[in-house]
Amino acid sequence: MTYDLIIIGGGPAGITAGIYATRQKLNTLLITKDFGGQMGRKALSIENYPGFEEISGPELIKRFERHLRKQKIDIERDKVTKIKKVDSKFFVFTESKNKFEARAVIVASGADPRPLEVPGEKEFIGRGVSYCTVCDGPLFADKTVAVIGGGNSGFEAAIYLSKIAKKVYILEYAPKVAADKVNQERVKEIKNIQVITNAALQKIQGKKFVDSIVYKERETQKEKVLKVEGVFIEIGSQPATSFIKGLVDFNEKDEIKINHKTCETNVEGLFAAGDITDVPLKQIVVAAGAGAKAAFSAYKYLQKLEQK
Amino acid sequence: MTYDLIIIGGGPAGITAGIYATRQKLNTLLITKDFGGQMGRKALSIENYPGFEEISGPELIKRFERHLRKQKIDIERDKVTKIKKVDSKFFVFTESKNKFEARAVIVASGADPRPLEVPGEKEFIGRGVSYCTVCDGPLFADKTVAVIGGGNSGFEAAIYLSKIAKKVYILEYAPKVAADKVNQERVKEIKNIQVITNAALQKIQGKKFVDSIVYKERETQKEKVLKVEGVFIEIGSQPATSFIKGLVDFNEKDEIKINHKTCETNVEGLFAAGDITDVPLKQIVVAAGAGAKAAFSAYKYLQKLEQK
Repeated sequence: MTYDLIIIGGGPAGITAGIYATRQKLNTLLITKDFGGQMGRKALSIENYPGFEEISGPELIKRFERHLRKQKIDIERDKVTKIKKVDSKFFVFTESKNKFEARAVIVASGADPRPLEVPGEKEFIGRGVSYCTVCDGPLFADKTVAVIGGGNSGFEAAIYLSKIAKKVYILEYAPKVAADKVNQERVKEIKNIQVITNAALQKIQGKKFVDSIVYKERETQKEKVLKVEGVFIEIGSQPATSFIKGLVDFNEKDEIKINHKTCETNVEGLFAAGDITDVPLKQIVVAAGAGAKAAFSAYKYLQKLEQK
Repeated sequence: MTYDLIIIGGGPAGITAGIYATRQKLNTLLITKDFGGQMGRKALSIENYPGFEEISGPELIKRFERHLRKQKIDIERDKVTKIKKVDSKFFVFTESKNKFEARAVIVASGADPRPLEVPGEKEFIGRGVSYCTVCDGPLFADKTVAVIGGGNSGFEAAIYLSKIAKKVYILEYAPKVAADKVNQERVKEIKNIQVITNAALQKIQGKKFVDSIVYKERETQKEKVLKVEGVFIEIGSQPATSFIKGLVDFNEKDEIKINHKTCETNVEGLFAAGDITDVPLKQIVVAAGAGAKAAFSAYKYLQKLEQK
């Protein structure tokens, strides 16, 4: 059987694409290992998805999934390992050795924040450890926090947090930070930000919530403790694009380059939406909006295809 | 006083921009006559805003407005009549003769579907009369409906509805329809669509809900009655852009041309989001996503401005 459309990914972009595609009567398969995408890794409250003043990640996921399942859609709990295009047909291969066919594909498998892989990191996710400053920053009003990573995203996170938190540390592993001069100069002028270079994070600790971090001064090899209640990890993210390498154009961050008006990629019939793309703002509502656009573009593409 | 940001419009795009801007600590003023934008004119249920399987327009507006009002934001219930940019400052003038200043502006004042202005039209909005096929079409399963307007949007609406409804009439005032040949050919092949040209709609009638429409055969001047339960008005929309004419670039439909990755217009410091822009899909979740992007871009623009 050939589907009209296969959607890869069960986060906000994929789910919204599924809702829109099935409402356009497209015969649709959605393939995802888990629902919720990055929302699932944020136990903190979500306060910026319009319509919900405050909702937990898992609760919003539950609502999104229920909304999707109300539609006439096939769902496979699997992981896509490869996509091939032959003539105008797509073949989608999965971890469980399944092969599916479709005339159009939407890739919405998101991105994963790159973890530090230090003790305490996983344990304190949602209890002090965050991978999303814009989402979770406002929860740390008048507290002391640390940003791990001295690149642009770390500096931007710190500038943002400096207006909310009492004190912000930036920890950078290298002897010099990698952030733009402009960002460095701005940070110099902000009194409650302190940059610590040559700092190798050793562990994140606390009881129920984070209360401190331990890092090694790389020059002296001495261990130091910083009392912080929040740890923002900003060492980059990994778009989940490995399975599609070679098929579509990426930017320098391995994100899929799209036409943001239509969510088209450089491959006809292949659309992409959400955090896997080169959209600057990785947010639930932005991903959802793009998912709707991608489904609409897929619908129009399939209409044209029929006319040929 | 000079605001960081003025947001014009209280629909999904403006409200989401407000939520995002204030979370970035921008000193923000939102100017709108009413909340909800086009949602307010749709009493029918909304089934495609992710997270709510089914919600009425007014209920979703209430939730959006409440979400916005939770933020630290100034709100003016007024209508913007003009925007001027002098150097890098914007001056926003309103109907009530107020004048506000800001360093950045987001225009999100939406679009209005062009009304037919026939008796019964207003009365039956949400009770058979719809201006949004994608939103309301699925509610007319196995019913007979009429689409008013023989342009591309009318034909596309009819094709979409033909898969849901039992029978679809397309009424066109002119002797010939204006839709693309491709669309005309497609419609010819669909058995449950019937095109009626030279038809001047006279009125929409019913008891609690629409049960029929009356049109005049323009050649014979005879009045005819069609039994329909739904009337989809597709004679175009009017982006609410008159107050900004001459300041930003429009497309041929008078929609604001934007960079869809960032919501930037051709005027530095002026951003636009939602149905007022040239985005192909006019939908709540798409507008909300764009509102978030616009706020983020305004925030980054203001940061740069500070550094100058």
